[in-house]
Amino acid sequence: MNELRKDPLLNKWVVVLNDSKPPEYYYIKPSNQEKDKELCLLCPENKSAPFKEIYAIRDSEGNYKIRVIAMFDPILRIEGELNRKGVGMYDKMNGIGANEIIIESPSHNIPSEDMGIDQMINVITTYKYRLSELEKDPRLRYTLIYKKSNIPSDNISNHPCSLLIATPIIPKGIKDELDGAKAYYHYKERCIFCDIINEELKTGVRIIAENKGFIVFVPFAPRSPFEYWIAPKRHSCALQEIYDEEIHDLSMILMISIKKMKSILKNPPYSYVIHTAPNRMPRKNHWHTLGDDFHWHIEVVPQLLTTSLFEQSSGFYILTTSPEDSAKYLREAEPL
Amino acid sequence: MNELRKDPLLNKWVVVLNDSKPPEYYYIKPSNQEKDKELCLLCPENKSAPFKEIYAIRDSEGNYKIRVIAMFDPILRIEGELNRKGVGMYDKMNGIGANEIIIESPSHNIPSEDMGIDQMINVITTYKYRLSELEKDPRLRYTLIYKKSNIPSDNISNHPCSLLIATPIIPKGIKDELDGAKAYYHYKERCIFCDIINEELKTGVRIIAENKGFIVFVPFAPRSPFEYWIAPKRHSCALQEIYDEEIHDLSMILMISIKKMKSILKNPPYSYVIHTAPNRMPRKNHWHTLGDDFHWHIEVVPQLLTTSLFEQSSGFYILTTSPEDSAKYLREAEPL
Repeated sequence: MNELRKDPLLNKWVVVLNDSKPPEYYYIKPSNQEKDKELCLLCPENKSAPFKEIYAIRDSEGNYKIRVIAMFDPILRIEGELNRKGVGMYDKMNGIGANEIIIESPSHNIPSEDMGIDQMINVITTYKYRLSELEKDPRLRYTLIYKKSNIPSDNISNHPCSLLIATPIIPKGIKDELDGAKAYYHYKERCIFCDIINEELKTGVRIIAENKGFIVFVPFAPRSPFEYWIAPKRHSCALQEIYDEEIHDLSMILMISIKKMKSILKNPPYSYVIHTAPNRMPRKNHWHTLGDDFHWHIEVVPQLLTTSLFEQSSGFYILTTSPEDSAKYLREAEPL
Repeated sequence: MNELRKDPLLNKWVVVLNDSKPPEYYYIKPSNQEKDKELCLLCPENKSAPFKEIYAIRDSEGNYKIRVIAMFDPILRIEGELNRKGVGMYDKMNGIGANEIIIESPSHNIPSEDMGIDQMINVITTYKYRLSELEKDPRLRYTLIYKKSNIPSDNISNHPCSLLIATPIIPKGIKDELDGAKAYYHYKERCIFCDIINEELKTGVRIIAENKGFIVFVPFAPRSPFEYWIAPKRHSCALQEIYDEEIHDLSMILMISIKKMKSILKNPPYSYVIHTAPNRMPRKNHWHTLGDDFHWHIEVVPQLLTTSLFEQSSGFYILTTSPEDSAKYLREAEPL
């Protein structure tokens, strides 16, 4: 079983894989274009593929439109006990959790944003369902859903897909955000995201798009040029609380904003991460503010050559394009 | 003047460049191999180059061995007032600070670790001198010295060089570390790094190398496979407090460890960052523990394809090679 370890200095947890790779694993390899010709385990034709289907949305013929499966070689596994313990001065625990692939299309090599609005709605509906289900497991503190697109080294399959990791800890990046939001709430008794959304709507200079339910904007102090956030205008701490009519608005604005980004940055690799509240079902009574201090959102970041591990390790980001200019380029772009 | 902006949620500051770049700036370009043939402004032959020399170590003929110059197009400038102010609900200030290039050799295209021990000692001596000098400016809170090596897009010159940014804020990555160390000190009344060094010396499984003054080890829960830290065995919060005899030990162990990493990872891009205490001269009396709770060190991180902006934004790192295996490969490697 893989292991979770805690950094004693920064209080962040990392996963250490049991199957440790030698240095050769990291040499830069030519990409494998042949993959497409092999029999694909994830295609609908392959009825006997050896994986566990967790959820699916199917058409009238019984073929899947969206399918969620357990990761073949999961980073975290659902079976077992947490078994947290000390090792000398350090802390570790078993790699308990869930690790799923959300296969977003039965077809190969079609980007999610090109699948059309109905399929995008299926994707968001699936996110909502998996978040709601995993929240019921009291061992799990957080469910992280993310997508890496157009990143050759990360190509898990030829189908467009999102990834899900449910963890027994709250990831450091999310924890920092929760702490920041809590400190603001403590001081102002208002949600910092609601204040940010009001501020952005007032000035307008960093807004990329908006519709009835959602706003898309470049944050005031992002990590990367052209990074942008999508947030519901209505206060809500968790994506799984989204209303059905809001799912359409979110799907539309996510699709359009990605197409705009692809248009101006020539189809860059990008990732997005859903920032939702930690799992609360089992501990609702202990969660003081019941979600008043957090506001779920999606952070979309193009992977440009200008950000590096140096910036990550120092936490000091240099923005070669201003947030206002980033927003203007994105706002005015024709969706690709 | 460039602008510093504060992220209201995470309390991190970013720099926004005045000269904002259009999307085309980020398109992937073929690298320019012709650069070497142009007249190099930084070569010793070029006596009339239009930049300000801040410091130099010269040979008996007057040619420089090491030279520190002000960055041509500085991210932060030394002239001016901080002028911190609010913009709506946000915070910003002028881009005051220092931005210097430490040119580590009069020759082109020689990696620092291949320059020999005497030149490596000159490099560390220069780090010490610049940290001591910049600490005297009461507007500056932190001096960040770092190196990016073998990263094509970051090639500032054909000479090996380190970069220095002195900032009116403490970078978020460093601040998190200071806070973690302070919390530990508050609880245990001991330096967390001294405890980590003792733990590592006791188990030995993550040690790469050591000599009289320094230890090189892979941390228990790093961000990247093959990441390693170099720390003085003696408690000391700031690099500028290094003793002369320790400079030799540090230079030797930095040089050897980089050569080992290059050997097993086939000369990867890498960066290192010096983590030293914030500037204290002007505020020594206010700094409660006078440096008992922090321990300076260098963090070296190879830039492998496996870490991505996703991990950075979620703060959830997946280590495909365990810290113990990383240490073993590095320990047993022949320096390249």
